[in-house]
Amino acid sequence: MTSKQCHLIKLYFQDIHVMVFLGFGFLATFLVRYAFSSSAFSVLVAAMAVQWATILNGFLWSYPSDWKIQIQLKSLVDAELCAASTLVAMGAVQGKTNPVQLLIFALIEVTGFVVNQWIIKTVFQTGIRTQWLYSIVLINIFGAFFGMMTSRLLFHSEMQTKHEKEKVSRTTGLFAMFGTLFLWMFWPSFNSAQEWKTSVICSTYLSLAVSAVTAMALSALSSSKGKINLVHVQSSMLAGGVAVSAVVTSTHDPWVAMTIGLCATLLSSLGFRYLKDHLLIAFDCHDTVGVLIVHAVPGILGWFAELILRVTKLNYTIAVKFAVYHICIMLVTVCVSLIMGVITGLILKWSFWKPQQYNKYYDDQAYWEFPHLREHK
Amino acid sequence: MTSKQCHLIKLYFQDIHVMVFLGFGFLATFLVRYAFSSSAFSVLVAAMAVQWATILNGFLWSYPSDWKIQIQLKSLVDAELCAASTLVAMGAVQGKTNPVQLLIFALIEVTGFVVNQWIIKTVFQTGIRTQWLYSIVLINIFGAFFGMMTSRLLFHSEMQTKHEKEKVSRTTGLFAMFGTLFLWMFWPSFNSAQEWKTSVICSTYLSLAVSAVTAMALSALSSSKGKINLVHVQSSMLAGGVAVSAVVTSTHDPWVAMTIGLCATLLSSLGFRYLKDHLLIAFDCHDTVGVLIVHAVPGILGWFAELILRVTKLNYTIAVKFAVYHICIMLVTVCVSLIMGVITGLILKWSFWKPQQYNKYYDDQAYWEFPHLREHK
Amino acid sequence: MTSKQCHLIKLYFQDIHVMVFLGFGFLATFLVRYAFSSSAFSVLVAAMAVQWATILNGFLWSYPSDWKIQIQLKSLVDAELCAASTLVAMGAVQGKTNPVQLLIFALIEVTGFVVNQWIIKTVFQTGIRTQWLYSIVLINIFGAFFGMMTSRLLFHSEMQTKHEKEKVSRTTGLFAMFGTLFLWMFWPSFNSAQEWKTSVICSTYLSLAVSAVTAMALSALSSSKGKINLVHVQSSMLAGGVAVSAVVTSTHDPWVAMTIGLCATLLSSLGFRYLKDHLLIAFDCHDTVGVLIVHAVPGILGWFAELILRVTKLNYTIAVKFAVYHICIMLVTVCVSLIMGVITGLILKWSFWKPQQYNKYYDDQAYWEFPHLREHK
Repeated sequence: MTSKQCHLIKLYFQDIHVMVFLGFGFLATFLVRYAFSSSAFSVLVAAMAVQWATILNGFLWSYPSDWKIQIQLKSLVDAELCAASTLVAMGAVQGKTNPVQLLIFALIEVTGFVVNQWIIKTVFQTGIRTQWLYSIVLINIFGAFFGMMTSRLLFHSEMQTKHEKEKVSRTTGLFAMFGTLFLWMFWPSFNSAQEWKTSVICSTYLSLAVSAVTAMALSALSSSKGKINLVHVQSSMLAGGVAVSAVVTSTHDPWVAMTIGLCATLLSSLGFRYLKDHLLIAFDCHDTVGVLIVHAVPGILGWFAELILRVTKLNYTIAVKFAVYHICIMLVTVCVSLIMGVITGLILKWSFWKPQQYNKYYDDQAYWEFPHLREHK
Repeated sequence: MTSKQCHLIKLYFQDIHVMVFLGFGFLATFLVRYAFSSSAFSVLVAAMAVQWATILNGFLWSYPSDWKIQIQLKSLVDAELCAASTLVAMGAVQGKTNPVQLLIFALIEVTGFVVNQWIIKTVFQTGIRTQWLYSIVLINIFGAFFGMMTSRLLFHSEMQTKHEKEKVSRTTGLFAMFGTLFLWMFWPSFNSAQEWKTSVICSTYLSLAVSAVTAMALSALSSSKGKINLVHVQSSMLAGGVAVSAVVTSTHDPWVAMTIGLCATLLSSLGFRYLKDHLLIAFDCHDTVGVLIVHAVPGILGWFAELILRVTKLNYTIAVKFAVYHICIMLVTVCVSLIMGVITGLILKWSFWKPQQYNKYYDDQAYWEFPHLREHK
Repeated sequence: MTSKQCHLIKLYFQDIHVMVFLGFGFLATFLVRYAFSSSAFSVLVAAMAVQWATILNGFLWSYPSDWKIQIQLKSLVDAELCAASTLVAMGAVQGKTNPVQLLIFALIEVTGFVVNQWIIKTVFQTGIRTQWLYSIVLINIFGAFFGMMTSRLLFHSEMQTKHEKEKVSRTTGLFAMFGTLFLWMFWPSFNSAQEWKTSVICSTYLSLAVSAVTAMALSALSSSKGKINLVHVQSSMLAGGVAVSAVVTSTHDPWVAMTIGLCATLLSSLGFRYLKDHLLIAFDCHDTVGVLIVHAVPGILGWFAELILRVTKLNYTIAVKFAVYHICIMLVTVCVSLIMGVITGLILKWSFWKPQQYNKYYDDQAYWEFPHLREHK
């Protein structure tokens, strides 16, 4: 690596570092009584995931030459992308798990993510472009399905009704806005983590701009009283960034990126209004911050948009081969994440970890010391 | 553009991106019941303004060669500077307009700003340095006068008395502090958006440091009980950055930058204490965050400081020509912004946009879904 | 300085700028009623310290060639490191001093810090590596001892019992989390302020990751009810960054950095649980944010770790010389900071500055205008 690349990577490293530790951490602070936990446990989970991912990645990519792990800024960026996947997954189980469960969850998720990369690398040895291995789309899809599956296994009948503390307050909503904006502002750097091109930054930027406008408009239009839901908007305005990450390297046309951003936000906004409660009732699957709608659905949309964009440019034989590879990578990722999610769910259900009782869900009181004196405003 | 410039622009782009979307957004969160709206609607307005500015700038600068818009990081930086102008203007009408009105406001403001650039470029074809076109001073002056004029036209008699919700709370004041600090910290990058020189960064930095100290001292000294007003301090500490942006390219002497920072903060601090209420009573002009005092007055001060600094260095003939050009550019900008502000005000008064009633001003309840259950602290 | 270095320094400058003005400012916002003051007075103190340090450094390093101060980005970075030292010191007297006292405190602290550098530079002329002069360890140690000594002299008997307002609230705790995270995320840039090496960034990063996990685990384990103390965690997770700053240039082994991070957090966490109250009772020394435990103790640990790491690699004669120099620099720094702290304490005790009464400690009401109307949530 030349000296110039060193400094470039410092630029992207710092942006992704801020996203992972600040953005994801504060994204979920909207829960009225769970803000200490969601911000601090995200840091805990991410710090643990980064270390574990550095070790796993080190062995995976150094094998079989020697067993020494080289740590460079590039390794830390890769490890942070694995941690981002864990934080996406964690969104589905936020508030329903204690810190010990979260740490186990993080270790299995990172392992699953690295195993998935190893499978893709080994099976699709030829014809695959390496940046797919850390593709932001796969990070989002793997994390979302993993988290959903774990959440499904941790489900119990009390969760059918909405928990009293599962709501936003004026203050926590603003903190979540901070987290969201940090993710939103640094998402262009996130999408260009593997390929440093200004075209990637421009496409992601425009897609996110469309997303922000669409998310607010749709939230107001789909509400019976014309009022905007802050949590829906915060989540949906990121959907454009997830979806566009799949296509940024194959197209430079801004309108393509903007259309994909629009469609992703459309799906995500409507999903929040109509799908989220349905998921809970029909599939017994509780999703605290809506990872399925924010990360999985736009991710899959982007993945298929990329397929169409590429296939139309190739001749028939190569196009078919490309399509098969492309779809198989997606299917393998979904399968591995679902299987690992089931395993995690089974492990976390074990009463040895002293899981929280339902009435203590979404509550900082269970984990944090608070001063005894009553606070007078 | 060489590869080195590409990476440099990434540096400045990210700083300005943070300023525009986070800094301006949270600057106005101090209103006790309007924090959701001020942070989210700023993002909405900025995201819309950026897209519209990209299109307008693209056509303006590509004309007459072809009709194809080239999108590069540079275009996005220029578009963000236009959006910054819109956000400055928006400060004057914060809390008194609904999102639809704000979007129309943004579209006209950006159009006006680009038209103003086009006039300056066409009329003052020779002898003008291109960086003036996007000069941070003109951005601030155009935005401030535009916003003031619109606000003047939206005035009605009920606004004579101070609205009950137009005040700061402990929490919203801190959020506004965050926004202010982000603007304050990244202002050196903002001022060097057109010319990447470390001397610009140093001068702006020192001017802002003087500003911060002066703002707090003056707020305490000008108060009868020696108490500091948080909102005044937050606004005045940015005045140094506005004023110095006019002179950073013509002088490298730190003491000049620091003196200008001092004078700007002096005007701004005293303006907040004595001028703001007077404006409301004498001119029926309500200015929510004080854009006239924070952006227009320091901007004009800086503009004339620049005139004096330049003229003393030139011989008589060139000096006169420079002075005429310099003053004319300012006058044109003020005129265009006032005219466009009047047009916007007339359009926004139309009852078709369903403007808010006075008792719903500065209140999130009108636009946002809140959970029904009462929050117990 | 070449053009490439100019842009590199812009990168580090901005990160350190954010740390100093945002990170340190919001780190101490956890006090329930003192958040306006802690965030705004930190900006005031830092802005003053930066200007004073620029002047002092300018004269110190330009002497005897001429009396002209060259201001470059490098000067501002150095000045910000001095300001960081002041902000560390200020942590010990937060909430117990008024703004005028804080400004005097800042001016003396910066003077002391620059004098200390001048002594080290003059006395240990040969054999000293220049980066020691601005070593992050010395910044932390000097600041912490200075602040502690001043706090000791300002002690009076009422402070024996815990002040009613010296506690955290849900909202202020989150703001402090923001400040902490900004320090934590940008600490790698802070440690590499004098030597821009990616190995420094990686070591600091890993040490801080270990620190974050350890701090949360220890806080829960050392509590009788297994509950985590947010303020302890926020402070302890930075200890790894302080300690590792001493060794980053002498070792590239990640496990060394991680072990030092672990030990520093161990000392810091246990110090918060068991030492902090003891300090108050036994030594009449009140330390608002725990600077002794967060900055001084990990700093000394790192300093001795560096000694051991270096000495084992050198031959006997050089090793002894190095050890003597190394220990003497530490002792000189501690002595100068203690002496200057005593002087500052004596000056600040003077009733001319109108010090606050005990019942007004830790309260924004004394300094800030608040709206008269009661806030209804």
